[in-house]
Amino acid sequence: MRSDVSAPTVVALLTDFGTSDPYVGIMKGVILGLCPTAQIVDVCHEVPPHDVLAGALMLRGAYRYFPSGTVFVAVVDPGVGSARRAIAAEADERIFVCPDNGLLSAVAKQTPIARAVELTNADYFLPHVSRTFHGRDIFASVAAHIAAGTKLDALGPEIDDLVTIPLSEAVRTADGWEARVIYIDSFGNAITDLREDAVRDTDVSQLRLSVAGTTIVGLSESYAAVREGEPVALVGSWGYVEIGIRNGSAAERLRVRRGDAVTVSLRRVEALE
Amino acid sequence: MRSDVSAPTVVALLTDFGTSDPYVGIMKGVILGLCPTAQIVDVCHEVPPHDVLAGALMLRGAYRYFPSGTVFVAVVDPGVGSARRAIAAEADERIFVCPDNGLLSAVAKQTPIARAVELTNADYFLPHVSRTFHGRDIFASVAAHIAAGTKLDALGPEIDDLVTIPLSEAVRTADGWEARVIYIDSFGNAITDLREDAVRDTDVSQLRLSVAGTTIVGLSESYAAVREGEPVALVGSWGYVEIGIRNGSAAERLRVRRGDAVTVSLRRVEALE
Amino acid sequence: MRSDVSAPTVVALLTDFGTSDPYVGIMKGVILGLCPTAQIVDVCHEVPPHDVLAGALMLRGAYRYFPSGTVFVAVVDPGVGSARRAIAAEADERIFVCPDNGLLSAVAKQTPIARAVELTNADYFLPHVSRTFHGRDIFASVAAHIAAGTKLDALGPEIDDLVTIPLSEAVRTADGWEARVIYIDSFGNAITDLREDAVRDTDVSQLRLSVAGTTIVGLSESYAAVREGEPVALVGSWGYVEIGIRNGSAAERLRVRRGDAVTVSLRRVEALE
Repeated sequence: MRSDVSAPTVVALLTDFGTSDPYVGIMKGVILGLCPTAQIVDVCHEVPPHDVLAGALMLRGAYRYFPSGTVFVAVVDPGVGSARRAIAAEADERIFVCPDNGLLSAVAKQTPIARAVELTNADYFLPHVSRTFHGRDIFASVAAHIAAGTKLDALGPEIDDLVTIPLSEAVRTADGWEARVIYIDSFGNAITDLREDAVRDTDVSQLRLSVAGTTIVGLSESYAAVREGEPVALVGSWGYVEIGIRNGSAAERLRVRRGDAVTVSLRRVEALE
Repeated sequence: MRSDVSAPTVVALLTDFGTSDPYVGIMKGVILGLCPTAQIVDVCHEVPPHDVLAGALMLRGAYRYFPSGTVFVAVVDPGVGSARRAIAAEADERIFVCPDNGLLSAVAKQTPIARAVELTNADYFLPHVSRTFHGRDIFASVAAHIAAGTKLDALGPEIDDLVTIPLSEAVRTADGWEARVIYIDSFGNAITDLREDAVRDTDVSQLRLSVAGTTIVGLSESYAAVREGEPVALVGSWGYVEIGIRNGSAAERLRVRRGDAVTVSLRRVEALE
Repeated sequence: MRSDVSAPTVVALLTDFGTSDPYVGIMKGVILGLCPTAQIVDVCHEVPPHDVLAGALMLRGAYRYFPSGTVFVAVVDPGVGSARRAIAAEADERIFVCPDNGLLSAVAKQTPIARAVELTNADYFLPHVSRTFHGRDIFASVAAHIAAGTKLDALGPEIDDLVTIPLSEAVRTADGWEARVIYIDSFGNAITDLREDAVRDTDVSQLRLSVAGTTIVGLSESYAAVREGEPVALVGSWGYVEIGIRNGSAAERLRVRRGDAVTVSLRRVEALE
């Protein structure tokens, strides 16, 4: 998959472990013990605990910006120790190592899964596998072996029935879309499930977005297009319409929450009266 | 110590500096200036401020998962600027660079300290040593020199009287153990001081654990062994018995705190009545 | 600039993005895709949101500890999407890539800017530049190209009118200085704008510092010079006089805040009565 054999392989970590415990550090120790030249990168460790959907959305937002050949280790794993499968999958020239609980759902919606295997070959696990920390004992270990050259075939049997979770997607209506807030970032920006390409051919200056009692008219080009403290809607860096406040928090000031409905109307303002 | 000379040396950092200041970043800059090929890894920077015991426990929980030859820099240093010694020690083929205040106590209980030196040779410090940031001026600098090949002998005289701090350890009783909660992780799991090997030969289904007014019967295999929201006791990834709530926080729901007593009884439930 | 061609180039990141979103991780993915051998280091990502001055002070406090040749990417960018320029500058053998909003002001006060260019050559940006995330689409991308060998000349026209922001600096008075608290770190230490070299030739045991209703007599050598819980003033690791509490938070106990005036008097205690 990788042409430049001398470049170190990137191993990118996404978990809900936070950073106040040594858990993520331990995973990195395991990886470097097995693949000393790995380039380890933190994607994010502040996925809300056990929130597989949030992890799936972050993974979708991030993976394309990593080089081909990157091995992602994604661990949001409320079912650790249960019968849920551990998997490795290839999509868009990247490898994803994770529990089979829907974490890949959003990536899979964007790019086809080329191949997936169940991780059953314990030769690639740590010698002692605990029942509570597969991030260390299975996922970090397998990812390091892959980064060091192990092929997916060696890890276990091929599977084609990955678990999926429902993903929110804006629904077309007579005069626009019924959308939803799917993520609030730490600046307080509210990312919706209305994709950039859905609105590409519309006159965005005519859009009316209503969320949590506030109505915003028109999509702007940037936060800087409105005055300090004013609400603004725009196509954000996630590739989705998002709602923000210039130099402020939309979550706080507009009281927008994850899951809130966003009604998007294409009719002109006058036409509504 | 290391056979593969081309593999970069891992320098692993554990501090109570947090991440809201540039202090940890500055230490990394110092290390890379002196050892450009070092593989720097964060073990954890959220040790509670000045809590040497918590730092010692994290170091014990983490070090074995890092490759042989890893240089640990551990800085939880309430006595910075006082007469406390700065040291480097070798144990289990890893090197530890830290203040001599008990930070190595828990590691030393698990594996013998092969050698320790006091850091007196200022040739390996930064040219100007401040009185408040030895993490930068002494510990990061010395660790980088070690990672680049400097031997412990060069750093100062050998010592064999490292400072130790008392470590909690479960005490055997007539019908079980008197244990204690030594750490609460960010998921709210309560790790006790009852070691895995202590309970290895007992019928764990017969154990009764009482903590903060809650009694749990039996050790489970995993969190997934109980229903959502139910308390569970098990041997966790730290190698100690821990108490948790499936997909919830034991610290919050059971009001367990660090230091709480945990009474573990081996007698059958019936026998108690 | 760098003599050892085989040493990987350090790319050091300073942002106000926090770590609860994947934004910083995405920047790292971009960098490694363009410069696979870069040594990426986090300086700090907890600059208070949109606080250019705090970012500028952190950058000044940190840059000297990084090796020559380091490429800093500094993104505190309330004006993203507006007409503010994007720049790259060289100072003290390091490169700084950032928005032109004063982020370099404090560095520039300490060391001359050798050269600066406006980033206009889109060949070095990501193919699609969003209006909200130049950290990813412009700054990370340009920094990676520089780390991989691109010269500043290639990036855009030379400029010599960098935006500056006012920096607080202690003012000499008849019997001392009028200083100000410019930064509170996460330990609660209050760093002032009174430089180390200003007090170098004074008898520091005679200094009286008054801040927020508390008076401290004399500069100490270290926190350990006073009793637990007592206030102390000293020259700290930032190279400025700072006020702290031994093993406690000055911010909390003395109610010191950023911006507070600190009156420093050289007259002897007796002379004041």
